[in-house]
Amino acid sequence: MDRDRILLTPGPLTTTLRTKLAMLHDWGSWDSDFNAMTARLRQSLLRIIHATDTHVVVPLQGSGTFSVEAAVGSLVPRDGHLLVLDNGAYCKRAARLAGLMGRKVTSLDFDESGAVDPDTLTHYLEGDSTVTHVFLVHCETGAGVLNPLAEVAAVCQRFGVGLIVDAMSSFGALEIDARNIRFDALIAASGKCLEGVPGMGFVFLRREVLEACQGNSQSLALDLFDQYTYMEKTGQWRFTPPTHVVVALAEAIAQFEEEGGQSARLARYQRNCDALLQGMAGLGLRAYLRPEVQAPIIVTFHAPEIAGYTFAGFYGAVRSQGFVLYPGKLTQLETFRVGCIGAIGTLEIEQAVRATGEALRQLAASQLVS
Amino acid sequence: MDRDRILLTPGPLTTTLRTKLAMLHDWGSWDSDFNAMTARLRQSLLRIIHATDTHVVVPLQGSGTFSVEAAVGSLVPRDGHLLVLDNGAYCKRAARLAGLMGRKVTSLDFDESGAVDPDTLTHYLEGDSTVTHVFLVHCETGAGVLNPLAEVAAVCQRFGVGLIVDAMSSFGALEIDARNIRFDALIAASGKCLEGVPGMGFVFLRREVLEACQGNSQSLALDLFDQYTYMEKTGQWRFTPPTHVVVALAEAIAQFEEEGGQSARLARYQRNCDALLQGMAGLGLRAYLRPEVQAPIIVTFHAPEIAGYTFAGFYGAVRSQGFVLYPGKLTQLETFRVGCIGAIGTLEIEQAVRATGEALRQLAASQLVS
Repeated sequence: MDRDRILLTPGPLTTTLRTKLAMLHDWGSWDSDFNAMTARLRQSLLRIIHATDTHVVVPLQGSGTFSVEAAVGSLVPRDGHLLVLDNGAYCKRAARLAGLMGRKVTSLDFDESGAVDPDTLTHYLEGDSTVTHVFLVHCETGAGVLNPLAEVAAVCQRFGVGLIVDAMSSFGALEIDARNIRFDALIAASGKCLEGVPGMGFVFLRREVLEACQGNSQSLALDLFDQYTYMEKTGQWRFTPPTHVVVALAEAIAQFEEEGGQSARLARYQRNCDALLQGMAGLGLRAYLRPEVQAPIIVTFHAPEIAGYTFAGFYGAVRSQGFVLYPGKLTQLETFRVGCIGAIGTLEIEQAVRATGEALRQLAASQLVS
Repeated sequence: MDRDRILLTPGPLTTTLRTKLAMLHDWGSWDSDFNAMTARLRQSLLRIIHATDTHVVVPLQGSGTFSVEAAVGSLVPRDGHLLVLDNGAYCKRAARLAGLMGRKVTSLDFDESGAVDPDTLTHYLEGDSTVTHVFLVHCETGAGVLNPLAEVAAVCQRFGVGLIVDAMSSFGALEIDARNIRFDALIAASGKCLEGVPGMGFVFLRREVLEACQGNSQSLALDLFDQYTYMEKTGQWRFTPPTHVVVALAEAIAQFEEEGGQSARLARYQRNCDALLQGMAGLGLRAYLRPEVQAPIIVTFHAPEIAGYTFAGFYGAVRSQGFVLYPGKLTQLETFRVGCIGAIGTLEIEQAVRATGEALRQLAASQLVS
């Protein structure tokens, strides 16, 4: 049968049929219809975080990481200094790409089981005046931690340093209000909580820092200033856009707005997360994070205590029932992850919990007979 | 009505419904089914240019230009020297991105109305032994010129310099045989002559130069060596792949093979090009290039000699009849371009010619009354 499995992953995720059906047309990238759609899409993205008056948004081809690299390369001057608040894999990736492009990078390390600490940041900035930009991952999906964006932004504002936010996994679901939270750049992508398909990212840039971005990037493809000025001048993308991905995102955002926007999406994801945590607890599976730092985006669970357990075997047993889990990303502990996001509700979460229970029974039984 | 316009553009182009229907599913990027599809896709790409034994192919997120930048950054060492054989806009783009990333670049200028000259290259290389890599655009769609790939490759081989080929608009349609033509890298993309949708590129790398690529790139996202080694190790893309674009490309390649592969595709495009040239000549529209350098990919025409002509007005008059033309890209002359590629045949070309004729009559009539 050709029914899709439910993706319990942090993107690509399960999208609606309506979103996918939008891809059944071909669009000319030079054509006025497509340019108008890009313009509408950008306006609707700005509205989501109330940034219409203060920021611009620059869409970019590629995965979310391409947009992260573009933001760092376009914002941090070549003699700048990036401080990465590191509590997980995506923080480390940002530090790595900043170092590769030759920027000075310092990582401030935090435990991956908790949030980053604004007081530690304050203390660091008091002792090092060379930092020009701070990098924060809003929801660190390595473990699933929600980091304190508003508090970190306030510290950065107080010290007059720029803030670059990787909001890949939070944008559209968690509240971000650009009227109250000051950032220079905030990055997200099509295939996450907006429930589009993967293939493009987008970066919000504060209007006041735009001019200073000119000439920073050593990359042509990833130069957000060049992408922005060309798009403003012509209405077009600089290089061939992923037209079908763009159209799917526009259709996904229409559904996002019909659902009730960010607050409604958060409520659905929170229900998914609650149902997941409760269901898995009933199977004896323990969440890795304390509830107060758990974002309702993706949940890390300790591996089940079954002799001979492997993630591959567990994954396969759940997958054969129609549900796709995600591997853990912690270095020290055997874990697995389950996403709460995508075009799914508690119905699918409850089905997935039952499938997980069945998989655990199968694994335990096979262990008994082996 | 919701019937798509025919795109007479060099990509995004008109794709088949079957290709688009492949995007009606969601795929997990970590899942074995998706990994197997990526592996099959890579094998089929290698077969198209008979490179299975000698090269690897590395897919990359983003537009074709992202892959061009990735190839230059991954192959040319930081102290290398890139010689760009420049006869058009895409050559200039390559020179620009190489310069931005700090590589030494020299452009060897040729007229954009003709092909690059291998003898001029020979002469240059005799006088400059610092060149490490030569950059050639196989089909320069700025004007539509076919450049002499085999002859340039032979010169590069004789001088022991690497060759990087932008085959964006030729791959799949024009013959490229890696058994006879030596190149270090050859770049193409999903949304061109393979008739997929835009959103990913791919780069063929000669196995013998792979190891030397390690550590060259200053970009994480655009590091082909890192992308390759990760994919070899895990079967997965390093960062979120554009899953729907990948699946559409796999489906498009299946149709490419069913059609009869490269030779059949070339034959169809050649018929399209011949019908276009003949039809437009009948309307009094002159092709810009001499026939011997005209690739059957995209044709540049001189603007019609109608008082008050603007491309926008002409474009709109043809568009309203269901056909999308492409603007010219020459700096000195008023031109427009018409693509011969995509899931179209002479039927659509003849329709487009009639629509163009009607547009010319409308423009001339409106000129008479104004």
